[in-house]
Amino acid sequence: MEVGKSVPRVDAFDKVTGRARYADDLCPRPVLEAKILHSTIANGWVKSMDISRAQALPGVVKVLTCFDVPAHQYPTPGHPWSVEEAHQDVSDRKLLNRRVRIYGDDIAAVVAQDALTAQRALELIQVEYETYPPLLTPEQAMADGVKPLHEEFPGNVLKRHVSEIPMPESDFKCAGDVLSFPGYHQFHGHYETQQVQHCHLENPVSWAYVEGGRITVVTSTQIPHIVRRVVGQALGIPWGSVRILKPYIGGGFGNKQEVLYEPLNAWLCTQVGGRTVRLDLSREETFQNTRSRHPISFDVRAAVDGDGFLMARECIAVSNQGGYASHGHAIVSNAVTGFRQTYLDQLAHRSEAWTVYTNIASPGAMRGYGIPQCNFACECMMDDIALQFGLDPYQFRYQNLMPPGYVDPLNGITCHSTGARECLEKGREFIDWDRLRREYQGQSGPVRRGVGMAVFSYKTGVWPISLETSSARVVLNQDGTVQLQLGATEIGQGGDTVFSQMAAQAIGIPTEDVHIVSTQDTDTAPFDTGAYASRQTYVTGHAIKKAGLLFREKVLAYARELLKRPGELDIRGREVVDAASGEGLLTLAELASEAFYSLDHCVHITAEATSQCKENTFSFGCCFAEIEVDIPVGKIKVLNIVNVHDSGRLINPKLAEAQVHGGMSMGLGYALSEEMKYDPKTGRLLNGNLLDYKLPTALDHPELHALFVETDDPSGPFGNKSLGEPPAIPVAAAVRNALLHATGVAVNTLPLSPQRLLEAFRKGGLL
Amino acid sequence: MEVGKSVPRVDAFDKVTGRARYADDLCPRPVLEAKILHSTIANGWVKSMDISRAQALPGVVKVLTCFDVPAHQYPTPGHPWSVEEAHQDVSDRKLLNRRVRIYGDDIAAVVAQDALTAQRALELIQVEYETYPPLLTPEQAMADGVKPLHEEFPGNVLKRHVSEIPMPESDFKCAGDVLSFPGYHQFHGHYETQQVQHCHLENPVSWAYVEGGRITVVTSTQIPHIVRRVVGQALGIPWGSVRILKPYIGGGFGNKQEVLYEPLNAWLCTQVGGRTVRLDLSREETFQNTRSRHPISFDVRAAVDGDGFLMARECIAVSNQGGYASHGHAIVSNAVTGFRQTYLDQLAHRSEAWTVYTNIASPGAMRGYGIPQCNFACECMMDDIALQFGLDPYQFRYQNLMPPGYVDPLNGITCHSTGARECLEKGREFIDWDRLRREYQGQSGPVRRGVGMAVFSYKTGVWPISLETSSARVVLNQDGTVQLQLGATEIGQGGDTVFSQMAAQAIGIPTEDVHIVSTQDTDTAPFDTGAYASRQTYVTGHAIKKAGLLFREKVLAYARELLKRPGELDIRGREVVDAASGEGLLTLAELASEAFYSLDHCVHITAEATSQCKENTFSFGCCFAEIEVDIPVGKIKVLNIVNVHDSGRLINPKLAEAQVHGGMSMGLGYALSEEMKYDPKTGRLLNGNLLDYKLPTALDHPELHALFVETDDPSGPFGNKSLGEPPAIPVAAAVRNALLHATGVAVNTLPLSPQRLLEAFRKGGLL
Repeated sequence: MEVGKSVPRVDAFDKVTGRARYADDLCPRPVLEAKILHSTIANGWVKSMDISRAQALPGVVKVLTCFDVPAHQYPTPGHPWSVEEAHQDVSDRKLLNRRVRIYGDDIAAVVAQDALTAQRALELIQVEYETYPPLLTPEQAMADGVKPLHEEFPGNVLKRHVSEIPMPESDFKCAGDVLSFPGYHQFHGHYETQQVQHCHLENPVSWAYVEGGRITVVTSTQIPHIVRRVVGQALGIPWGSVRILKPYIGGGFGNKQEVLYEPLNAWLCTQVGGRTVRLDLSREETFQNTRSRHPISFDVRAAVDGDGFLMARECIAVSNQGGYASHGHAIVSNAVTGFRQTYLDQLAHRSEAWTVYTNIASPGAMRGYGIPQCNFACECMMDDIALQFGLDPYQFRYQNLMPPGYVDPLNGITCHSTGARECLEKGREFIDWDRLRREYQGQSGPVRRGVGMAVFSYKTGVWPISLETSSARVVLNQDGTVQLQLGATEIGQGGDTVFSQMAAQAIGIPTEDVHIVSTQDTDTAPFDTGAYASRQTYVTGHAIKKAGLLFREKVLAYARELLKRPGELDIRGREVVDAASGEGLLTLAELASEAFYSLDHCVHITAEATSQCKENTFSFGCCFAEIEVDIPVGKIKVLNIVNVHDSGRLINPKLAEAQVHGGMSMGLGYALSEEMKYDPKTGRLLNGNLLDYKLPTALDHPELHALFVETDDPSGPFGNKSLGEPPAIPVAAAVRNALLHATGVAVNTLPLSPQRLLEAFRKGGLL
Repeated sequence: MEVGKSVPRVDAFDKVTGRARYADDLCPRPVLEAKILHSTIANGWVKSMDISRAQALPGVVKVLTCFDVPAHQYPTPGHPWSVEEAHQDVSDRKLLNRRVRIYGDDIAAVVAQDALTAQRALELIQVEYETYPPLLTPEQAMADGVKPLHEEFPGNVLKRHVSEIPMPESDFKCAGDVLSFPGYHQFHGHYETQQVQHCHLENPVSWAYVEGGRITVVTSTQIPHIVRRVVGQALGIPWGSVRILKPYIGGGFGNKQEVLYEPLNAWLCTQVGGRTVRLDLSREETFQNTRSRHPISFDVRAAVDGDGFLMARECIAVSNQGGYASHGHAIVSNAVTGFRQTYLDQLAHRSEAWTVYTNIASPGAMRGYGIPQCNFACECMMDDIALQFGLDPYQFRYQNLMPPGYVDPLNGITCHSTGARECLEKGREFIDWDRLRREYQGQSGPVRRGVGMAVFSYKTGVWPISLETSSARVVLNQDGTVQLQLGATEIGQGGDTVFSQMAAQAIGIPTEDVHIVSTQDTDTAPFDTGAYASRQTYVTGHAIKKAGLLFREKVLAYARELLKRPGELDIRGREVVDAASGEGLLTLAELASEAFYSLDHCVHITAEATSQCKENTFSFGCCFAEIEVDIPVGKIKVLNIVNVHDSGRLINPKLAEAQVHGGMSMGLGYALSEEMKYDPKTGRLLNGNLLDYKLPTALDHPELHALFVETDDPSGPFGNKSLGEPPAIPVAAAVRNALLHATGVAVNTLPLSPQRLLEAFRKGGLL
């Protein structure tokens, strides 16, 4: 079995020795450098621009402004294209924008012979603005009389949708905006999450050149095939005339699931005669001009019966979209869907989701895609309900969990397998829940301890909301090893390693005999939409399995031709064997040598297959956290923390554990310290750098514990389910609930920073 | 029809604007630079080497010598691998060699932080040699008592083989070494060709790095998949752990059909921890250490009947192989085969071929692969026979030409189509042969004119001597265009353009909708042995046709699924149409959009196919040249020259014409001025640079005329036959025969340089 083994990462050696080549390492030097002029207002218009001094600067090749770009707008998110216009993404930006919608909006660009000259030229451009007050919250943006950010959306509401679901076997009808459930315990809560940034190590960087009349962009992206399409859309050229190369990337976490600067880079290249142009974003630009996690406010209601069963819930979520649509309404929509899914409502569920344009830096996809936000709301609510009605938070959750076979009433996604209960049991035992819940009850004094928990469920891929499709190609080498070529991307998560294991498993050879083609070249790589939605091991896994089995069949057919013997054949290790006796008949190296060089029948054995995935499944998990809080200092110290995951069968347990560690780290930053802050007067991001933005380091963390409950999901290619995003989801609510346990104070807004805790403790009478 | 159209080269714009990326353009800088220490003797041993001073030089990373390299030997020629050991190439060199076999042999290498430091380090290495006299000719090398260059070949004879063929329907038996034909005219002649170099614009350059535990070499080669194998052999590692990238190359002409410095580059890289190492050969190294065209001497006999029909011929060819086997015996073997093939011998044919190791720079493959040499011998002989027995050289050739349906008695290659007679007629008319032959008869005075001709035939690919196989892959793009991916290589000859036309033709779309993947990456490119033997339009053409038709079927199958209508469908232009009415039903862009993004049935349409070619065919042609010779100056001026070719159906007439122009230019240099010369005392190459080596320039040439006779060869994928090499073949003999016509002096050794002409004229009594 190659699947299920903790084989070392195929890219480990190159990455730890610094030998792995990232986009910028591949860029020829010297090269033309592009720099972007960012607006110094958050809301308004560019009235005019004087570029004469910039143009005159020696070394400047070209200055281009928002007055020069093509008139049409294009969308940026990394979604599969839809042939139906109604399902296409919002096209709300140009390559450079006259209408300024965020502080630092892209209004001009300089291409120069070196970066310093380009930077100096930017400083010589004079801009005249028409300025409006910055609108930083949905409330401000939806107020009467404000100017719309996009004329297509006069009230600044990108979208609002309502879902009212009577549960099967229930004759309950939703009535109006507020649920009314006479005879049940009623709960109402309000929770708010903050805006945080991915903080991947590698800032966005790309370089573009024209070759053969077509444009190539080498870029740090999670979604090369989607970048190809969006560059085509943005430049108004056929998609086939764009080529994207995606080498190793230094993290993405969803930020590189969007096509942000590749179109501008490509266009600038075309404006200087197709010469190679490099566009390298600074950390500050990455904060201000790329994506982040949406701040979402949740208004939630619930009705619970006397036995502690959830009867109905309502979730009204308002998402602050910033200046550009990015993934549009999809993320808050996913948030209210996720709010619905972990637990079963017996009677009814209502949700309402709003996406509102404002002038903050536009959020987009970030690990969890709305679920970390709704999980905070949902799991805080579960503890608050338990506290209010005297239920045990563990038992209350446990008894309301989605049952096996659950089918989501709106999208039909089915719970094919669940280890949720076992995850809870394992976590409870690991953290010693019962003892700590008792021990930490009723403390006094300035330093107190508590234990909290949170549960989540997570889908696997995007079907049936959107298309799920992937292709894989397997090529025989002369020595009997194979090449595995995919459109799916390694983005640091270990994808290449588990893909190699899957191919090895399907073919029947050792993983080390699978050489994966890590760089995606859209000219030759099989099509795949890329790394997002924790989809690749599931959706691409199916394609790898299909191509691997097809390849195996072709190899065995050729072996039958060579061996001319009766009986079933099999591939084991590096040999073709008699399936019954296991006797080795022919090494794959010998077979390959014949296949390549036979004067009689030469054939280059390859297999390529598309798998369209029309299935989805839920993974589950939970976090248990034990904390200590220093009340006068407002500081939480996490003493012990564990995530327990049911991601189906693990392809590589060691890599799965590493994936969980990374997610937990991200969850702790989300819980305790990270937040993007704006100057309310100007709308300027105040802490868009790694000094002022409080990203936790390894030293800020306790030992991170990852446990698994392996289920064998029947819909997964190898029994596996989503794992990439889930680990980040439950941490913040678990810590917040531990704080509630320790202090009795419910802090409903993230992050649980000292300032916020002090205010809450003061309000709660602890200080 | 896309085939047959003179579409512009797909790489024209990039190449003329300097934008095309060659191997060195892609190399990251700064990079470790390797330089090679070459021996200062031609024959002997390295007894010892002191590298201490070189190692101590700041900036030197590594010094490696012939005492450090792996002990095993490896072969270098670009032949398909054979699974039978007897058919494998001669393994007669190590990465660096203690046994010195040419002046400038590779004996050590330095890797340093920059090229200058590497060069300085070379100068600090002290070498002690055991020196033997240089053996520059086969006669010297085969003399008694000389030291063998390779201990496996004690007499320095790499191979000798004899073929004695009684013709079908003849009971004539060859007897012994000399043909004896009582009753027929007997002819005996001796002809010699010189050593010349390809002089491609781009010298060999490569760079290598280790990634993922595998070694990648980016290199200027004609044969990426063969380089992969030979690097594996040379380093003693599995072939699948080697990756070769082949970008645009600046010419090859057969010199890059050999794996010369990629193995050393790869090995040096592994010796510095896998860091990137660049190895860039100078022009001087290219002359001395890469390949050239073999000097071959021919002893020929013929028997002709009273009606001017060839009864029998004998050809004894001795090839000077230099220090290393390179293509081994294959080239002289091809020469004697070629000598046999243009004309029909009624009774018998005998040939004897020798390959002898000497100490000259080792020749290898060069445009024509032995045929320019044998053609000079054969076509001089034809004129000499005509002169001796009072035949008209045109008529004598015409009546002896290989007839349609001719089958070579030794290898079975069949004449499927021939336009040879029409070529002769067309050339005769163009040059005004009859008038000029008359007019220039019996001139006197110092400046005289003459007209001469030569005919050739040429095989297409290497079957059945060796394996012929090729694969092609076609991938649908989102906009309905396609990618064409091949292992076959563009080497400046226009391959990418004609491949695109062929794919377009097979699929039914415009050529501009075929985007060819020009760079071969052996990790993903379909397998193909590469550019040599004028094979690609023929062998790869079959693979393209097969993959194109398969792709077309898949597209039409998907169209049927979408359209759900009766009747045959066809692809025309950019549309799927009703085959009967021609009515457009669906654009390919619409079809592609559905195929990629359908929520119902999504499939990424690609097609990949292997074509093993078990056929061969003859192309034909001739050259007619009118010259003026200044006898006292010994200088020939070509007044008018035309090549007429039957290469079957022309895929791209304009490119075919360009191919002929290039070949004629090469032929003129071969005829008149080019020759590699050695110091007999040291064996040092005296003119290994573009100043002293007399390569003609455009200004040295007359207007070059190219005419075609299009036949439709039934074995060719699109009726086409070989064209790449043929144009260089007949020029030298045509010019020499014109000189014979002008002066009555038969010069039997190339080149027809002033010095040689003066000697000949003096001997012939003209001076």
